[in-house]
Amino acid sequence: MIILPEKEIASLIGRAEAFTAVERVFASMAKGDAYNFPVVREAIGHADALYGFKSGFDRSSLALGLKSGGCWPGNADKGLTNHQSTIFLFDADTGRVKAAVGGNLLTALRTAAASAVSIRHLAPKGAKTLGMIGAGHQSTFQMRAALEQRAFERVIGWNQHPERLDRLTAVAAEAGLPFEKVSLDRLGGEADVIITITSSFDPILKDAQVTGGTHIACMGTDTVGKQEVESALVARATAFTDEVSQSLSLGECQHAAREGLISETDITPIGDVINGRHSGRTSDDELTLFDGTGVGLQDLAVAASVVELALEKGKAITVDF
Amino acid sequence: MIILPEKEIASLIGRAEAFTAVERVFASMAKGDAYNFPVVREAIGHADALYGFKSGFDRSSLALGLKSGGCWPGNADKGLTNHQSTIFLFDADTGRVKAAVGGNLLTALRTAAASAVSIRHLAPKGAKTLGMIGAGHQSTFQMRAALEQRAFERVIGWNQHPERLDRLTAVAAEAGLPFEKVSLDRLGGEADVIITITSSFDPILKDAQVTGGTHIACMGTDTVGKQEVESALVARATAFTDEVSQSLSLGECQHAAREGLISETDITPIGDVINGRHSGRTSDDELTLFDGTGVGLQDLAVAASVVELALEKGKAITVDF
Repeated sequence: MIILPEKEIASLIGRAEAFTAVERVFASMAKGDAYNFPVVREAIGHADALYGFKSGFDRSSLALGLKSGGCWPGNADKGLTNHQSTIFLFDADTGRVKAAVGGNLLTALRTAAASAVSIRHLAPKGAKTLGMIGAGHQSTFQMRAALEQRAFERVIGWNQHPERLDRLTAVAAEAGLPFEKVSLDRLGGEADVIITITSSFDPILKDAQVTGGTHIACMGTDTVGKQEVESALVARATAFTDEVSQSLSLGECQHAAREGLISETDITPIGDVINGRHSGRTSDDELTLFDGTGVGLQDLAVAASVVELALEKGKAITVDF
Repeated sequence: MIILPEKEIASLIGRAEAFTAVERVFASMAKGDAYNFPVVREAIGHADALYGFKSGFDRSSLALGLKSGGCWPGNADKGLTNHQSTIFLFDADTGRVKAAVGGNLLTALRTAAASAVSIRHLAPKGAKTLGMIGAGHQSTFQMRAALEQRAFERVIGWNQHPERLDRLTAVAAEAGLPFEKVSLDRLGGEADVIITITSSFDPILKDAQVTGGTHIACMGTDTVGKQEVESALVARATAFTDEVSQSLSLGECQHAAREGLISETDITPIGDVINGRHSGRTSDDELTLFDGTGVGLQDLAVAASVVELALEKGKAITVDF
């Protein structure tokens, strides 16, 4: 059994490897080679924790396993990350456990990789302005991964608490780009690519605010009731997602679907674009939207990748199990 | 993170500790302090494997986690056990992973402990004859745990392939007891306690075959469609189980329930007997039946117990995770 503690992950895997792993598993999912098992998610009635598992199997890579963990809101007071996760991989040929991998950084990397994959395949080629909505922990990962997909010249951002955007100003500076805090009207009008990464339960970005050819990656909605953009905006866009059933039930598309504005056939798995079965964006003026709901197979893909890298670099801790 | 490989388990925990752990968690479940999360079970479409997770949380012991694994029918050819499982425990206060524990022997011990708990609380006090139906790997664990619950004087057994009962003859000899291969008519008529531990999809033991005061522990049915005893026998018995919802959906009671012979209120959680809220057996002539469906909380209970024992004995492998 290979053990890869959380503190080792950052030295083993980066955005490029996470991108490749996530792009590959989205392709497998769309081909029907990989599928996610039902998600288990429980309010355990202790420490206000929400705990559960995301799991699946990719027949093409033979990645089998689960990510276990959840949110413990009191952790910050103890000097720990609120979101705690661990990924377990199993040998698909025997069922024996193969690896236990710290899943906190990997979760951030795989979530950022998902929107980056959507930007690479769907954003206007000449995109110059990146618009960020949200300024939490995950926003910096999203922004760094997005900036690598196009020759962006500037970043604009909006957050309910504008002062928190300073962390994104710093990330833009790292990349040598200017960052400006703007209104939602300006953000929707000026950005060529928009990432929403909030925990909102009410639509932040309105349909009328988004003009011109734009790609929007909605990355925050992963629960029934959450919503980042107006459902009319979802309905107007050409919609893509990681997993259609999850997009309809708990992703950003849930509201437009419930209101009858869109149906299952209006949402394309991003893997179809990666596999060349869907042409993706057809003109510079088109509005495309990626609903990133987050699936267990992404976790398994990046965990399998980091295990491979650890073995290559001789950094895997092995325990006879 | 504590690592307890499969090969260490046998030296750390035995039937007595497994009995205590399982009895305690059944009591917690009946009090509403412990509950099982939805079971994930998937035919993964590779190596004919059936894979999944059983998970839960016990607020009284703070045992939180899952058993992951399944059945890989081709393992025997590779010199491995077909049923492979690993139990993962988490810190209920922070969500951090606490232990990875080999789950193969523990699964056998916790399953045997469940029927043993039912025998201790429900079998006629003066039971002299133990009847075994089934002679697979798990049957020896069942028999050893059962023999410790009453002053049995002999064991009788039936199996579809009678020659396989030799392994039970050997277990009886260990305990200094005679063992006899008998017909189902004789088994149902003579045994005071009957354990069924098969993978049958058709009723083996018929209602008319069971006479006099008897306790039956049905331990083999854990899937929709499986059945070990006639539904009329279930209907005639005072029925107990580990988890009522599972008993009705995939346990031995599924058939009697589907046929309208019994309903939810006819099945008592065994924990109610342990907690003194149900009187259990009310006369020596009564027919009692325990439907052992197997729940994730049993796995967590024995895993938490073995981790504690390993720490006490200084045998825990600890990895900084």
